Amino acid sequence: MANYSSLSREELQREYDALKVAYDSFAAQGLKLDMSRGKPGAEQIELSAPLLDALRAADDARSENGMDVRNSGLFDGLPEMRRLFGEIMGVDADRVILGNNSSLNLMFDAVCQGMVSGFGQAPWGQQGEIKFLCPVPGYDRHFAICEYFGITMIPVPMTQQGPAMEVVEKWVQDPLVKGIWCVPMYSNPQGYTYSDETVRRFAALKPAAKDFRIFWDNSYCLHHLKKDHARLANIFELCKQYDNEHLVFEFTSTSKISFPGAGIAAMAVGSYNYDLIKKRVMIQTIGPDKVNQLRHMRYFKDLDGINAHMEKMAEILRPRFDAVLQLLQHDLADTGTATWSDPQGGYFISVDVTEGCAKRVVELCKQAGVTLTGAGATFPYGNDPEDRNIRLAPTFPAIAELKQAMALFTVAVRLAALEKRLAQD
Amino acid sequence: MANYSSLSREELQREYDALKVAYDSFAAQGLKLDMSRGKPGAEQIELSAPLLDALRAADDARSENGMDVRNSGLFDGLPEMRRLFGEIMGVDADRVILGNNSSLNLMFDAVCQGMVSGFGQAPWGQQGEIKFLCPVPGYDRHFAICEYFGITMIPVPMTQQGPAMEVVEKWVQDPLVKGIWCVPMYSNPQGYTYSDETVRRFAALKPAAKDFRIFWDNSYCLHHLKKDHARLANIFELCKQYDNEHLVFEFTSTSKISFPGAGIAAMAVGSYNYDLIKKRVMIQTIGPDKVNQLRHMRYFKDLDGINAHMEKMAEILRPRFDAVLQLLQHDLADTGTATWSDPQGGYFISVDVTEGCAKRVVELCKQAGVTLTGAGATFPYGNDPEDRNIRLAPTFPAIAELKQAMALFTVAVRLAALEKRLAQD
Repeated sequence: MANYSSLSREELQREYDALKVAYDSFAAQGLKLDMSRGKPGAEQIELSAPLLDALRAADDARSENGMDVRNSGLFDGLPEMRRLFGEIMGVDADRVILGNNSSLNLMFDAVCQGMVSGFGQAPWGQQGEIKFLCPVPGYDRHFAICEYFGITMIPVPMTQQGPAMEVVEKWVQDPLVKGIWCVPMYSNPQGYTYSDETVRRFAALKPAAKDFRIFWDNSYCLHHLKKDHARLANIFELCKQYDNEHLVFEFTSTSKISFPGAGIAAMAVGSYNYDLIKKRVMIQTIGPDKVNQLRHMRYFKDLDGINAHMEKMAEILRPRFDAVLQLLQHDLADTGTATWSDPQGGYFISVDVTEGCAKRVVELCKQAGVTLTGAGATFPYGNDPEDRNIRLAPTFPAIAELKQAMALFTVAVRLAALEKRLAQD
Repeated sequence: MANYSSLSREELQREYDALKVAYDSFAAQGLKLDMSRGKPGAEQIELSAPLLDALRAADDARSENGMDVRNSGLFDGLPEMRRLFGEIMGVDADRVILGNNSSLNLMFDAVCQGMVSGFGQAPWGQQGEIKFLCPVPGYDRHFAICEYFGITMIPVPMTQQGPAMEVVEKWVQDPLVKGIWCVPMYSNPQGYTYSDETVRRFAALKPAAKDFRIFWDNSYCLHHLKKDHARLANIFELCKQYDNEHLVFEFTSTSKISFPGAGIAAMAVGSYNYDLIKKRVMIQTIGPDKVNQLRHMRYFKDLDGINAHMEKMAEILRPRFDAVLQLLQHDLADTGTATWSDPQGGYFISVDVTEGCAKRVVELCKQAGVTLTGAGATFPYGNDPEDRNIRLAPTFPAIAELKQAMALFTVAVRLAALEKRLAQD
């Protein structure tokens, strides 16, 4: 296969005709595959199944401080669970706020608190047209939160080292810029891990707004695909050097460690934010589900236990990521119709197709029975200005299905590029 | 014992001296008892313990529609759980929104949505000094939500039939009145159940504000103490007759059925509110904990299963309520120093002591080692204008301890009344 840019019109047409035949035969198979969300596959779920037996009726149901977790009280959750999340996020246990099953819920509620109560300043909702910075491509659910609250989103380009920091540093001089969404480790969708220098520059930010916050969504911090994995600098440590601890809300969860929707979510913050957030949470809830916390503690025991579990998880996921990357390489590398990320962890692979073709690729796949994440979903307002980026989620389908889906995908990428070229000439 | 109002000063002084000796002997015992919160006792928790074995690793983990509840998806929660809560609250399953472990959380988030997004009108937070009606005595956590959001609270007197409806009907003519807190069955703290006529008048309200909502906190709807128990009219059925379905947010949970903090909370609403609330919840969360839902379904099976469980719960609770009521009757009935409610269900007994004495009674108990709910907690801003109401929570202490605590309590009630009388004369 040659790079399409070097082909004549006749050669392009021949390539198109051949791919159209391949595409039609896919379409005739009646596929029904879903690669749209970062949903764990059946093998992953089975790996965590014994968690359900980790706290039985006959077991002692007390936390390490002697409280019966089945009763009310112990509003902050289990001390041992706070300590574990402290270790995961690199903060002391007393900086950890435990949630229920969804770190997204913690993020939404934090933004909501900014809107309605503010963070030491007037509520964001009373300050005019406030703005969040959104590294792109990024996570659609982050953008949806901003859209729900009417917060203007400003795209910031991603690099392999993280968001373009000179752009971030410039924007935070605007006092109406109140936040930025970051997935600092194995970013969604590219799988990049922010460099030490990027994290340092975040920690050193001097925003015009005193109530500016970095939403540090560290969902994938333990989700390595390779043994020799990336390391993320500890933003709280660095913040201390710049007297900037109040800048960061860090989030994580066990959603993709134990069970999505039945795991434990947590937030780490400096002491100033801790008091503000607790003031709200104490009114909002009766505390998180402590029974599920004890179940998790009994099963995983400690960070070593989680890491051992995540190594097994990586063995399930690695072949899936490899299958996708191999097909991308084999089918597309020479054609010049796409580039893609080679993630060392996380849940996604990001593909940039020919400019103006992402929507068409997703449509072609859909028509042949494979659902991808909607084109544009990785951009604020669903608007990818170059219509190039597509997020692939390789975790859910079985490998055989994944290969089918990817074979169709690479045909669609080439077809869309050829359609465009042939229409132009 | 005679009614104190008929005693001479000398007789009062003699009574005071005798009670002071009794009080000092209590104080010398070094009691350490807590009757402050509606916390289940150890026996109640043990009754629910088998729930922990109801969903094991080896069990089929699919909901009735075939979804693996351990994975993501099924955003609305289990259809069978929605149906069960629909039965409990008297609505169709498709009007039920399932939450996580806290109906308080659902209430807070609903108020918050009113403040920041509104209900079909401008956000409450942009409408000036909005107000909520608060039947008193009432639930301190409801009042705390209003206080958090800066919502002005207006007390409305309670009667044995529910809130004084002529007061409610008058206040809702004010377009800034946006809500009312109701615990319609076994009200907190009196244990009253709203009469059919009260529920009808709620359903027939014509508030000036289109975004007025009734917060119908039906936490105790299955928490009967007697076999021949109270019945609460179905407010949604009545609302339909008045084309008023949008008026009601109903809440309930299994917090005091299974485990506090590890149960299932739910909300029932009409279709208009359903769409508004879902619009927010879909952005806010990844859906509720479905594993815990399936665990509850496997254990309780259906409403009959829950009712059978609650009959056993009543057998644990009845002797506690009886012990409290007997001591109140025996020690206080003749003295004229207190009146109290005789609840048919729920978690509390409400005592009205001599005017101006509630704070003193709580203080006397505290000094002798028994913690009660703070005086005033049952009123907005902690301000009981007559300083009379005290909420007793008989569920947590063992019966022997409960009797000790109550013996002290009735001494304190009489002492406080005598102190006041003797100081006046």
